[in-house]
Amino acid sequence: AEVKKIAVIAGDGIGPEVVAEAEKVLKRTEELFGYQFELERGLFGGIAIDERGTPLPDDTLEMCRRADAVLLGAVGGPKWDNNPKELRPETGLLGIRKALGLFSNIRPAVVFDCLKDASTLKPEVLEGTDLIVIRELTGGIYFGDKFRRDSENGREAVDTCVYNETEIERIVHQGFEVAQKRRKKLASVDKANVLETSRLWRETVNRIAPEYPDVEVEHVLVDNCAMQLLRRPSSFDVIVTENMFGDILSDEAAMLTGSIGMLSSASLGEGSFGLYEPVHGSAPDIAGQGIANPIATILSVALMFRLTLGYEEAADVIERAVKNVLDAGHRTGDIAVDKSKAIGTTAMGDLIVAAM
Amino acid sequence: AEVKKIAVIAGDGIGPEVVAEAEKVLKRTEELFGYQFELERGLFGGIAIDERGTPLPDDTLEMCRRADAVLLGAVGGPKWDNNPKELRPETGLLGIRKALGLFSNIRPAVVFDCLKDASTLKPEVLEGTDLIVIRELTGGIYFGDKFRRDSENGREAVDTCVYNETEIERIVHQGFEVAQKRRKKLASVDKANVLETSRLWRETVNRIAPEYPDVEVEHVLVDNCAMQLLRRPSSFDVIVTENMFGDILSDEAAMLTGSIGMLSSASLGEGSFGLYEPVHGSAPDIAGQGIANPIATILSVALMFRLTLGYEEAADVIERAVKNVLDAGHRTGDIAVDKSKAIGTTAMGDLIVAAM
Ligand SMILES: CC(C)[C@H](C(=O)O)[C@@H](O)C(=O)O
Ligand SMILES: CC(C)[C@H](C(=O)O)[C@@H](O)C(=O)O
Repeated sequence: AEVKKIAVIAGDGIGPEVVAEAEKVLKRTEELFGYQFELERGLFGGIAIDERGTPLPDDTLEMCRRADAVLLGAVGGPKWDNNPKELRPETGLLGIRKALGLFSNIRPAVVFDCLKDASTLKPEVLEGTDLIVIRELTGGIYFGDKFRRDSENGREAVDTCVYNETEIERIVHQGFEVAQKRRKKLASVDKANVLETSRLWRETVNRIAPEYPDVEVEHVLVDNCAMQLLRRPSSFDVIVTENMFGDILSDEAAMLTGSIGMLSSASLGEGSFGLYEPVHGSAPDIAGQGIANPIATILSVALMFRLTLGYEEAADVIERAVKNVLDAGHRTGDIAVDKSKAIGTTAMGDLIVAAM
Repeated sequence: AEVKKIAVIAGDGIGPEVVAEAEKVLKRTEELFGYQFELERGLFGGIAIDERGTPLPDDTLEMCRRADAVLLGAVGGPKWDNNPKELRPETGLLGIRKALGLFSNIRPAVVFDCLKDASTLKPEVLEGTDLIVIRELTGGIYFGDKFRRDSENGREAVDTCVYNETEIERIVHQGFEVAQKRRKKLASVDKANVLETSRLWRETVNRIAPEYPDVEVEHVLVDNCAMQLLRRPSSFDVIVTENMFGDILSDEAAMLTGSIGMLSSASLGEGSFGLYEPVHGSAPDIAGQGIANPIATILSVALMFRLTLGYEEAADVIERAVKNVLDAGHRTGDIAVDKSKAIGTTAMGDLIVAAM
């Protein structure tokens, strides 16, 4: 088979631990399916700040550009929280998204059967919840001009939210395309009753909608969406929205499933290239203890197989293996009911590899 | 007693019906406590668009300026949704906030005992939830420059988020003051890892915090707050945040209590003047049927008594009357378990008046 280059960025906190298990899974698919992966490893985030004085070293970026896909653990931690902006892990995150043109963040929020009770929502409300939040990732208020100036009322800070039609079109098209492959329902979230960018967003959605006559479109105001996610989560299929709203709503959606420690995400650009990472963070409080749950990262590999590499069968095998291991009752501490029976990161990874 | 002027704005949809019941409650407190209210009524929102060609007629604004407090029903409806901006109810809402200097929106999110089961959250998670969201209401991206322009990538829309120190200080002080009267915990919500306005916000909070040594301050990122509200709602006491984040989080917080139809809100400026309204909207689908729940509006009167007029005792009487009527099993359709036993808007209002 063709050699696929995977850029592996372990990052900070539990990042290296969970990524190590995902690498085992990659290796196992080589054996099972004859794939060939060439892994390159790079520094990114806090560790890159410590070792190289910048959260996103050029060679890490170059490594990503050479690769077919990027696998990312997690970045950040209190150690770097009070650094100046250019020495913060988040700055690296925003930088890599922009530099690699990853304009679309895809986050499936699904409920794992074995974790149904972990949600703070009632099981009957959660029943059937299976939604995807597609968040615009390289525009809006995240990337517009930001500055300070003096005013009559003390210092003044300014952030600018900008969207052009091209930026909106490409993410909206993706929303429709993903919806077409699912339950054919697209909720476009904006604040069109207040924001000009939202009005352009909504007009663009309405202009594009006739190209996807089989998809039912609903416009939802962001405040209302924050409510409806709680009231009727299972009624959503695909949600598409701008950067800032997507940041908030995708976290809300992930948390309501109760499965946040198991969720994976993809950041995509034009073409098949993508960056894959667990939704959870770097969890500095449990880093280095060998107790982190590697499943979200392992499932990120499955997502990479599906969305970038087209290795559908192997993706199925990984997802089934995870399911089987969970069904057999194995749990890491974060998802264990009886914590005394919890297994560690490596044990969980090994079990999944064995089940493949 | 001194005559208090109350500007009454019934508005659209169920607004007139629920406000009529709140007026009965006002009248009853005149009898019970010897208060004197002078009510003036004005047009606002959709009905003002229809009758006067503008959502916020000058005489309505003047009426509010003359008053000690404003009681608002609800505005808006599908009829005006596709109007141009200057002919939309929301424009009136933003206009009245700005014109009256109502920079602070206070929304208590409490769980009513009789509605515990109405929440989609598990009762044990909700247990003890009693929080207040204080939202900055006249700044930020709502009021900054908005415009369109041409770009290389089609049309481009711009919204500007601006905050100066004075604007942040006054709302943050209010957050601390409210927290001091409660459980002394303030969560300041921002996106300081991305936004310049949020960094100025956080610096300002940190600068002011030493003036309130008895209040414990926590900085929470907005995406994390959207999650924590779901995970540990009862751990929050007072949340203070900027306009756009407050719009989203206050709706999320209200919905998770399950009591959204019962929640009231206050919009305040400098001094004691305030505008009081239910959190729920104009519910055009049930307007004119006499079935709307007037409790949120009646409780808005109690809030007005507390925060603007200093009529604490009467506020207690109203709140106790509501509780007694609910404890006796009376329900409007929206909160009835057995819908066939539901009572109407007027009957609910009369029962509460009788219980006072
Ligand atoms: C760390 C932060 C800059 C980032 C964001 O807001 O995009 C994070 O919250 C995320 O969602 O990936
Ligand atoms: C109608 C709309 C402009 C308004 C807002 O966003 O402020 C509403 O959602 C609210 O919260 O009062």
